[in-house]
Amino acid sequence: MAAFDLAADDAQSLAQIIDYVRSARSVTRPEISEATALSRTLSTKFIDVACELNLLKNGEIGQSTGGRAPRLIDFNESAGEILVAELGATGFNVAASDLAGNLIGSTYVEANVSMGPDAVLKLVEQEFDQIVNTHKLKNLWGIGIGVPGPVEFATGTPVSPPIMPGWDRYPIRERFSTKFKVPVWVDNDVNLMALGEHALRKDVITNELIFIKIGSGIGAGILTHGRLHRGAQGCAGDIGHISIGVSDVSCRCGNTGCIESVAGGLAIARDAEEAATAGKSVYLAKVLKTTKKITIGDVIAGSTNGDRWCTEKIVKAGKDIGAVLATLVNFHNPSLIVIGGGVSNAGDKLLASIRESVLNRSLPLATRDLQIRLSDYPYQAGLSGAVEMVINELFESETLRRWVATGRPSPSVIHASA
Amino acid sequence: MAAFDLAADDAQSLAQIIDYVRSARSVTRPEISEATALSRTLSTKFIDVACELNLLKNGEIGQSTGGRAPRLIDFNESAGEILVAELGATGFNVAASDLAGNLIGSTYVEANVSMGPDAVLKLVEQEFDQIVNTHKLKNLWGIGIGVPGPVEFATGTPVSPPIMPGWDRYPIRERFSTKFKVPVWVDNDVNLMALGEHALRKDVITNELIFIKIGSGIGAGILTHGRLHRGAQGCAGDIGHISIGVSDVSCRCGNTGCIESVAGGLAIARDAEEAATAGKSVYLAKVLKTTKKITIGDVIAGSTNGDRWCTEKIVKAGKDIGAVLATLVNFHNPSLIVIGGGVSNAGDKLLASIRESVLNRSLPLATRDLQIRLSDYPYQAGLSGAVEMVINELFESETLRRWVATGRPSPSVIHASA
Repeated sequence: MAAFDLAADDAQSLAQIIDYVRSARSVTRPEISEATALSRTLSTKFIDVACELNLLKNGEIGQSTGGRAPRLIDFNESAGEILVAELGATGFNVAASDLAGNLIGSTYVEANVSMGPDAVLKLVEQEFDQIVNTHKLKNLWGIGIGVPGPVEFATGTPVSPPIMPGWDRYPIRERFSTKFKVPVWVDNDVNLMALGEHALRKDVITNELIFIKIGSGIGAGILTHGRLHRGAQGCAGDIGHISIGVSDVSCRCGNTGCIESVAGGLAIARDAEEAATAGKSVYLAKVLKTTKKITIGDVIAGSTNGDRWCTEKIVKAGKDIGAVLATLVNFHNPSLIVIGGGVSNAGDKLLASIRESVLNRSLPLATRDLQIRLSDYPYQAGLSGAVEMVINELFESETLRRWVATGRPSPSVIHASA
Repeated sequence: MAAFDLAADDAQSLAQIIDYVRSARSVTRPEISEATALSRTLSTKFIDVACELNLLKNGEIGQSTGGRAPRLIDFNESAGEILVAELGATGFNVAASDLAGNLIGSTYVEANVSMGPDAVLKLVEQEFDQIVNTHKLKNLWGIGIGVPGPVEFATGTPVSPPIMPGWDRYPIRERFSTKFKVPVWVDNDVNLMALGEHALRKDVITNELIFIKIGSGIGAGILTHGRLHRGAQGCAGDIGHISIGVSDVSCRCGNTGCIESVAGGLAIARDAEEAATAGKSVYLAKVLKTTKKITIGDVIAGSTNGDRWCTEKIVKAGKDIGAVLATLVNFHNPSLIVIGGGVSNAGDKLLASIRESVLNRSLPLATRDLQIRLSDYPYQAGLSGAVEMVINELFESETLRRWVATGRPSPSVIHASA
C-alpha cells in the first residue's frame, strides 16, 4: 500500500470520510459529501485516496433515485487484521479478527497465570504466530489483550494484580508491539467483557451497561454512553471489596465482609469444603472423599443434583451480590446488568436470587426497564471486547488522523504521542 | 443581527470555527484555519460571517512571529445572556449570566415549593423580568432551571418529585420558553451543583466528580469525562435510598435503613427532637422549649457550642454517609467528592468523619489521589451549573449547527428537533 503525503487538513477530511463510511456501512458518494460537509470535488478526491489505500472499496449498485443507479461505497472490513488474547487464572483464549469483529481461529490453551509473564506470554506469542500462519494473515493492524487484574490503560501494564504474581508493571504492550510491529492495547478482562457484550448485541440498551464477573473474585465493567468508564485511576468497577456490612468473614484485603469474601467463587468453594467436612452436605462429602478438593463447579453440580446446602449457598450468594448491585443501580441507573464468570454457570437459581435482591432495594424508576441477565456470549465476550477495544482506539478520530495517510497503523505513530 | 442563508456544510464550518475560538480563547486567523482544517480563504470567510453575527470579535494585537503582529480573534462573551433559577424547598435563587458564566443580579426569594408550580414560577418570572429590566438585557439566549427533585431532562419536566407536591409532569420548559421566547433546560439541583463545581473550579480533577448534597434528603450529581452521567432513566445519583444495612429505621419509601432516613437533615432533626424530649441534650431541650421545633441548624449550632449529643450525631451521620460513599468510590473511582447541602454546614466534624469512613472501606488505589472536600461555592454552584448546562446545550456541535446561521438560538429550532 502506498503512503500518501497529505497535509494535516487533508488527513482530517480523509479520516472523516472513513469514519462516516465505517459507521454508516454502504453509502453513495453524494451521501458521503453531504454527511462530511465536503464539496463533491473534495470528497470524490478523498474517497479515491481511501480506495487506493484499501480502506474503502466499491460495493454493490444502490437504488436509483431517478437517474443512473449509483455504486455504493463500503468500508473494507478485511483491510486489517487484529490479534486478541484473553488471559485467565488457569488458561488463555486467543483469536484473530477482521475489522468487523468476525473472530477466526479461536483457541484455548491451558497455562497458569502464576507461571509468570515471560512463560505465559511466550505461549501466547506462539499461538499468535500459529494463527497468523494458518490463516495467512498479512495485514496485522493491532493486538488487544485482556488480563485478570487491574491495568494502567495508558501504558498497557498490569498494576499490583492480586492473582498474577510477578506481573506487576510487566510491559505487556512493549513486548508485543516490539515483536509484532503493531500497536497494542491491554485492559482488564471485565472491562473487555463489557465492551464485548456491547459489540456483540449491538443494541442501544447496552449503552448503559454494568457487566459483573463472578469468578474467583468479583469485578465489574461499566459502560456510560456506550464508552468504558475507567475512573480517575483506572480502577472503576473494582467492586470485590465493597462491604456487605453484616459479615465478619476476613478478606485477603484486610477488611471483613467484602462481597468477594462471602460470594466469590473461592469463598463459596472454601465454605463448601467446610460444609463437606462438617457433614452438612452428603453430596459435597462424597466429592471431597473422591477428589480431596471442592471447587465452585462441584457446588453448582451439587445444586443441580438437588443438594440442599449447595442450592442454599448459591441463593445466598445471589442475595448478597444483589444487595451490592441495588446500591450501584440507585447510583448509576444502568439499563442492563449482565452476569458472567464461572459462578454464573449456576444459572437461573443465582439469577433469580440476584434479581429479587436488586428489586427489593432499588428505586422503582431505576428498575422500571432494568434488565438483569446472564451473558449471552460467555465464551466470546472477552475476545470480542478485545477486538472492540483495538478498533475503538484505531478509529478514534485523533488517532485515525495520525495514521490514515500511511494506510496502516504503526506503533511508533500511535503509541509515541499517547 | 442579520440571518444568513447558509448551506448545511457552511453552517458546520461556522459552528466548527466558533466552537474552536470559544474553547481556545484568543487565537490568530492562521491558528483557526489550521485547527479547523479549513483553507485560509474559507476560514476567513466564515470568521467574517461570525463577526457580522456578533459571535466572534476582533481582540488585542497578538505576538509577532516575524512579520506584522496579528490581530487576535475572540469569542464574544457578551453576545448572549442567560437567565437561571435554582429552586429549593423553601426559596429560590435567580441570576443572569453572560456566555462566560459571569453571574449578575443574583437574588434570593423566599417561596415554599409546596405552594405549587404556578405560584412559585410566577415569582420566578417576576424576578427574571426585574433582572432583565435592571440590567437592560437585550440578547436573551436561554434559560436554565434547577429543581429539588427528579427531572425528565429531554422534556424539561419534573417526574414524581417527592418534596414538590403538584409539580409532577408540570411543563416548566414550555412555560418559560413561551413567555421568554428562548430555549429552556431543566435539571435537578444536584446535577447542576456538580456542573457548577466543574465550571467554577476549571481544573481537571473535576472531570471525575461526585457531588453529594446532604440536605433534607441525600442526592448525588455524577460527572464522567467532565459530562453529567444521567443514567438510563435519568435517575442516576438518586442515592438517598441506598441501604446502610444495619438500621431498622423506616423510610418514607417503604424500606428500612435508607441512608437518607438515618443521616439526612430531616432524620437528624427528627432524632434531635426525640433527644431533646428525652433529656439527652441540655442544649436541644432549651431550644425546643423556646422554639417548639428543632431544625438541622439547631443541631449544628449545638455541636459548635460543645453539646455532646449533637456532635456525636453529626459524627455518626458522617460515618454512615462515608460507608455508602466507600462503595461508590470502589465502583466509580472518582478523583473528587464534593459535599454540599444544608447538613454540610456542620463543616470539619462531618467531613473528617466521612473521610475516615471512606478511607477505611475503599481500595487504596481508588483513594490514593482522592480528594473529599466541602463545596468551595455553596451559594453559587447551583446557579453557575444552570448557566453551564445552558451553554453546554447551546454549543453542543449538532445544536450549534442548527442555530448558528440565524445568529441567535430560538426555541422552535432547538426544542423542535430535540
